[in-house]
Amino acid sequence: MRILVANVNTTLSMTDAIAESARDVASPGTEIVGITPRFGADSCEGNFESYLAAIAVMDAITSYPEPFDAVIQAGYGEHGREGLQELLDVPVVDITEAAASTAMYLGHKYSVVTTLDRTVPLIEDRLKLAGLDARCASVRASGLGVLELESDPERAVEAIVHQAREAVENDHAEVICLGCGGMAELEEKVRAATGVPIVDGVRSAVTIAEGLVRMGLSTSKVRTYATPRVKKVIGWPFKL
Amino acid sequence: MRILVANVNTTLSMTDAIAESARDVASPGTEIVGITPRFGADSCEGNFESYLAAIAVMDAITSYPEPFDAVIQAGYGEHGREGLQELLDVPVVDITEAAASTAMYLGHKYSVVTTLDRTVPLIEDRLKLAGLDARCASVRASGLGVLELESDPERAVEAIVHQAREAVENDHAEVICLGCGGMAELEEKVRAATGVPIVDGVRSAVTIAEGLVRMGLSTSKVRTYATPRVKKVIGWPFKL
Amino acid sequence: MRILVANVNTTLSMTDAIAESARDVASPGTEIVGITPRFGADSCEGNFESYLAAIAVMDAITSYPEPFDAVIQAGYGEHGREGLQELLDVPVVDITEAAASTAMYLGHKYSVVTTLDRTVPLIEDRLKLAGLDARCASVRASGLGVLELESDPERAVEAIVHQAREAVENDHAEVICLGCGGMAELEEKVRAATGVPIVDGVRSAVTIAEGLVRMGLSTSKVRTYATPRVKKVIGWPFKL
Amino acid sequence: MRILVANVNTTLSMTDAIAESARDVASPGTEIVGITPRFGADSCEGNFESYLAAIAVMDAITSYPEPFDAVIQAGYGEHGREGLQELLDVPVVDITEAAASTAMYLGHKYSVVTTLDRTVPLIEDRLKLAGLDARCASVRASGLGVLELESDPERAVEAIVHQAREAVENDHAEVICLGCGGMAELEEKVRAATGVPIVDGVRSAVTIAEGLVRMGLSTSKVRTYATPRVKKVIGWPFKL
Amino acid sequence: MRILVANVNTTLSMTDAIAESARDVASPGTEIVGITPRFGADSCEGNFESYLAAIAVMDAITSYPEPFDAVIQAGYGEHGREGLQELLDVPVVDITEAAASTAMYLGHKYSVVTTLDRTVPLIEDRLKLAGLDARCASVRASGLGVLELESDPERAVEAIVHQAREAVENDHAEVICLGCGGMAELEEKVRAATGVPIVDGVRSAVTIAEGLVRMGLSTSKVRTYATPRVKKVIGWPFKL
Amino acid sequence: MRILVANVNTTLSMTDAIAESARDVASPGTEIVGITPRFGADSCEGNFESYLAAIAVMDAITSYPEPFDAVIQAGYGEHGREGLQELLDVPVVDITEAAASTAMYLGHKYSVVTTLDRTVPLIEDRLKLAGLDARCASVRASGLGVLELESDPERAVEAIVHQAREAVENDHAEVICLGCGGMAELEEKVRAATGVPIVDGVRSAVTIAEGLVRMGLSTSKVRTYATPRVKKVIGWPFKL
Repeated sequence: MRILVANVNTTLSMTDAIAESARDVASPGTEIVGITPRFGADSCEGNFESYLAAIAVMDAITSYPEPFDAVIQAGYGEHGREGLQELLDVPVVDITEAAASTAMYLGHKYSVVTTLDRTVPLIEDRLKLAGLDARCASVRASGLGVLELESDPERAVEAIVHQAREAVENDHAEVICLGCGGMAELEEKVRAATGVPIVDGVRSAVTIAEGLVRMGLSTSKVRTYATPRVKKVIGWPFKL
Repeated sequence: MRILVANVNTTLSMTDAIAESARDVASPGTEIVGITPRFGADSCEGNFESYLAAIAVMDAITSYPEPFDAVIQAGYGEHGREGLQELLDVPVVDITEAAASTAMYLGHKYSVVTTLDRTVPLIEDRLKLAGLDARCASVRASGLGVLELESDPERAVEAIVHQAREAVENDHAEVICLGCGGMAELEEKVRAATGVPIVDGVRSAVTIAEGLVRMGLSTSKVRTYATPRVKKVIGWPFKL
Repeated sequence: MRILVANVNTTLSMTDAIAESARDVASPGTEIVGITPRFGADSCEGNFESYLAAIAVMDAITSYPEPFDAVIQAGYGEHGREGLQELLDVPVVDITEAAASTAMYLGHKYSVVTTLDRTVPLIEDRLKLAGLDARCASVRASGLGVLELESDPERAVEAIVHQAREAVENDHAEVICLGCGGMAELEEKVRAATGVPIVDGVRSAVTIAEGLVRMGLSTSKVRTYATPRVKKVIGWPFKL
Repeated sequence: MRILVANVNTTLSMTDAIAESARDVASPGTEIVGITPRFGADSCEGNFESYLAAIAVMDAITSYPEPFDAVIQAGYGEHGREGLQELLDVPVVDITEAAASTAMYLGHKYSVVTTLDRTVPLIEDRLKLAGLDARCASVRASGLGVLELESDPERAVEAIVHQAREAVENDHAEVICLGCGGMAELEEKVRAATGVPIVDGVRSAVTIAEGLVRMGLSTSKVRTYATPRVKKVIGWPFKL
Repeated sequence: MRILVANVNTTLSMTDAIAESARDVASPGTEIVGITPRFGADSCEGNFESYLAAIAVMDAITSYPEPFDAVIQAGYGEHGREGLQELLDVPVVDITEAAASTAMYLGHKYSVVTTLDRTVPLIEDRLKLAGLDARCASVRASGLGVLELESDPERAVEAIVHQAREAVENDHAEVICLGCGGMAELEEKVRAATGVPIVDGVRSAVTIAEGLVRMGLSTSKVRTYATPRVKKVIGWPFKL
Repeated sequence: MRILVANVNTTLSMTDAIAESARDVASPGTEIVGITPRFGADSCEGNFESYLAAIAVMDAITSYPEPFDAVIQAGYGEHGREGLQELLDVPVVDITEAAASTAMYLGHKYSVVTTLDRTVPLIEDRLKLAGLDARCASVRASGLGVLELESDPERAVEAIVHQAREAVENDHAEVICLGCGGMAELEEKVRAATGVPIVDGVRSAVTIAEGLVRMGLSTSKVRTYATPRVKKVIGWPFKL
């Protein structure tokens, strides 16, 4: 089975980190392919960048030359999953939702700890649309930008651990979701510091995507995610 | 005051119709400028096309060479309003929300009658995100595509009137929102046939946008819609 | 166009202040008429006073001898709007709802800062009934009575600014609604102190009422707000 | 113990019927006093009449010359309970809420069958405000006016039984609340026809009010229902 | 009338205390019978113990040799009420729900103060299922185990008063429910310390159960709580 | 990896069918062990039977003599998962939730088709508690008892297909969950007849449980699902 794991930003080292993390939990025989968009921001931290990423990921996935069995949208709180579902016949799993649905098997309430404060409403909105917000205790921001996770990992751990503890103590979270595609490496440290299960969206998405493929299930095409009607679309496929 | 009214599809005649309808209710001294995206589908009837439109509208609006006072996103149930709010300092009004907030001043419950069944969940999701769904009785589809509204107006009226009546009789709607940027001309006929107020999103958006400008109000920049951080963005502005 | 702006209390200076504020944003050609009830409390700060005001405003509006095009119910969180909608054929706009629907165009979440703590639940209830509460971050009380806004404006500004800052910092409000008919003058100072858009209900209501009139829209009469049936009503119209 | 049962309309025979029904379930030693407003409509079927009744009931209750232990607001879906709670130190029970909270002990979902269609939204709104709507399957109208219950009881039973059956079969109601102060006599017939428990609001309210008194409980005065502040109130108490 | 009041744990002194408290508010002529399960934990503080109690209470009630008119499930936040409703023809009242529905007649919002933090989610879940959570301001834990209420009453009062005050001041509760079957004795002290009405679940349940019996109402048998189908059930009735 | 799949009823052939279905999607190296309770009903179709099953499954699982890596609670809409989570250190997956969270990756809305009408509220309640109800279009009953699925498979398929079609056409479901542990064999036929993805709870649970184990995740023990406190528990472990 081949799973495409799509980074939402144009930072190659981040694609590599995400794909590596995905491989950690992939079953034997599952090939993980990291995908980097051809255009867009080097980190997604807001709606403009996220909308651009939505299109960039669709562009990248539909340009991929080989067959594949599932797609993971590896941006936390980002737009675009619904478009991929229309364009593809294979299952599409968004990591925001994968982390949430996984966390809900582990505790009564979960919290998300993400990067910048401005991305909190995007995550909240994605969870609300997905209908996975009822048991979300809080979405908290560490205050660090996406790229600072790589450039200053120590400070990142500290800031994330601080928010995770607050979530457990004040918001009654029993599980913490790491709210960014590139946080998987911090998992172990945050778990040690808080004593609660730590859920990574990418890893969760891999297990869910594999499960869907194994069960022979894919996106329903009867209504919302039906294949786009044949029509005149200017500028697509993209010629950058 | 100059208001840009952005069509979400690439069909020029539809931009013209939308702008014309906007002018009907604009105050003296308000200039309405219709904007057509450079790329995208000739009608938006699904998520892929809607995400593409989100970017295409941002592209078109940020390329507009003159100053302006407000922007209307004239696609019903479409993505993108949040990105415009980040990129601009002037108010941005989405017609899905404008129709809903207007309808809520006119009756206890409102319904939306839109085009194809597959666009219903997009509208429902936009209303849920906007927090304007609590008094929405139903979103109903006439079964006609966006472009059929122009090509076969008689059948369009009939199909929309049928759904509007169902909404009033069975869903207890007291107001009907016309769920498409290009439906304003049908307003009179649907009102005559149903006896309830008919709300057009574009017209509502014009009055709301004018009001915001007159009150000196614009998008809050403290959090969700803060201007994007300065960063490397490949491929933007778009060179088609 | 003539708009009646109904104060809910019997304090004339407050009617004048409200009407003045309404005129600030009214279009050329719109006449604003301030209406003061013949009976009721000199300030509304609870349910008893608010129910009395509901009737007093209906009494005052239905006694107004000239034609008019719209009515603004200028009490924040007060009862009565639904009754006016039944009695009248012109649009009725409640300032609690006008402020909320306006704020929702400006930020992801809004808060209301009002007068006494005991009026908070009234406002929360009106927002819930109106279906405009989903994006309300909080309703906060400054602790000052309605009439203290006039008698001690400096302390009023200070108390309101304090709560507005708390709302932005702790409740994640991105917009502040001034939760009282008589707070419009404080707008500028609260904006300067918080850096977020400040929404006044009366001004918002004027722009919305004008918009409805311009679009030829008024209350739906098919169900909830149908004209009262003809029947025996003792003591009405009121003879005080 | 003396309980005042306040009719919301000015029809004396209805007050008598309500009081009689209350006496059916009152404990030995409980005196039921029927109260009729001095002003208002001879039946309440809409917001204007209901707001007028809210004040008329406050007027009547605060004019009652003897001591009493509890008050029942015997209008279904009517305004005013909150004002009584502010003015009084004894418990106040609204029959809409009493019927709902009672029904919730008897089945998974309940429905309300009321009089005219236009009163349905009033009942829905009262249940929403009371936080008792989550298990309400539907509020249905028989199409008969309040006074027709008395004048044409046979037709009333038929129409109510029809809606009650629909509620059980289609809306999955397991309990039916009779949604009008004057429906108690129909109870037996509707139960026989539907096979589900039939809840009368007035009777329910009597048992709840007695229970509160027996437990020594009354309205909390710390916030929402605190006694009105001392202030100038023109025209109150009412001199009709 | 005979009401069985079922303790959920196997501690006899607690059954006695609960029954005593029930007798305080029972009408003349009502016999209160305390029931202690034959098996289960000596205190219920979690789901395993609560599920065991659910069965143990059903076992105890269905083994009771005399006729009875109603049953009170006297565990706060515990499982099992639905099963009793299926097995019995008389009304069943859960004290979690009785306290909540009673509190809702006394103030705009209520809070529950319970024992251990781990029982908070059980109570929250029961209130959500019962549809009585909309006006619940908070469920707070005193940190004391169920049996410590008896063994160290002074510390219990202190801890409960502390949380009750927090609920009133920070969560805007206007009423406090004592969230444990065995807390009724603390009622007076908590009321004195907080100034708000204090609701005991057992006492509330007695008044509600009596009311249902007096109105001739019992559990609807048309759907959710229909008598179990006749089938092979191994090990039931229990032979311990 | 060894996964215990616990049937909730005492019918051995059903345990076998469930285990067989689980094996269909289990990864190589995963051992599926079917568990049958020692006591309880031969089919669970109501709360009494479900509560008994909750205890019976805890009894059976805690009596299992070998180590295991995860547990699947294979009853649809049944009680008990929370108790297992307290008693065990390995992940516990309930099939009601597994089906729902899986369905949510495949379409905008899903419906559940189950057996008897009386079990519908149990499923609705489990989904509400799990916070997985927001995108549930409907829970529909085929009208067939659990054991009739085995005894009359043809009629079962027909009845289930009928309800599944209704769900797709009228409730706008895009995915159907088979709402019973023993329905997996019908999957293919229902899919062929409706054209939408069909989700089986047991199979979904296997993939989710495997995923949790592979990620090294298990139930959070900080609050709701902490190990029961050491205390006196009469009659446990059960001696039947």
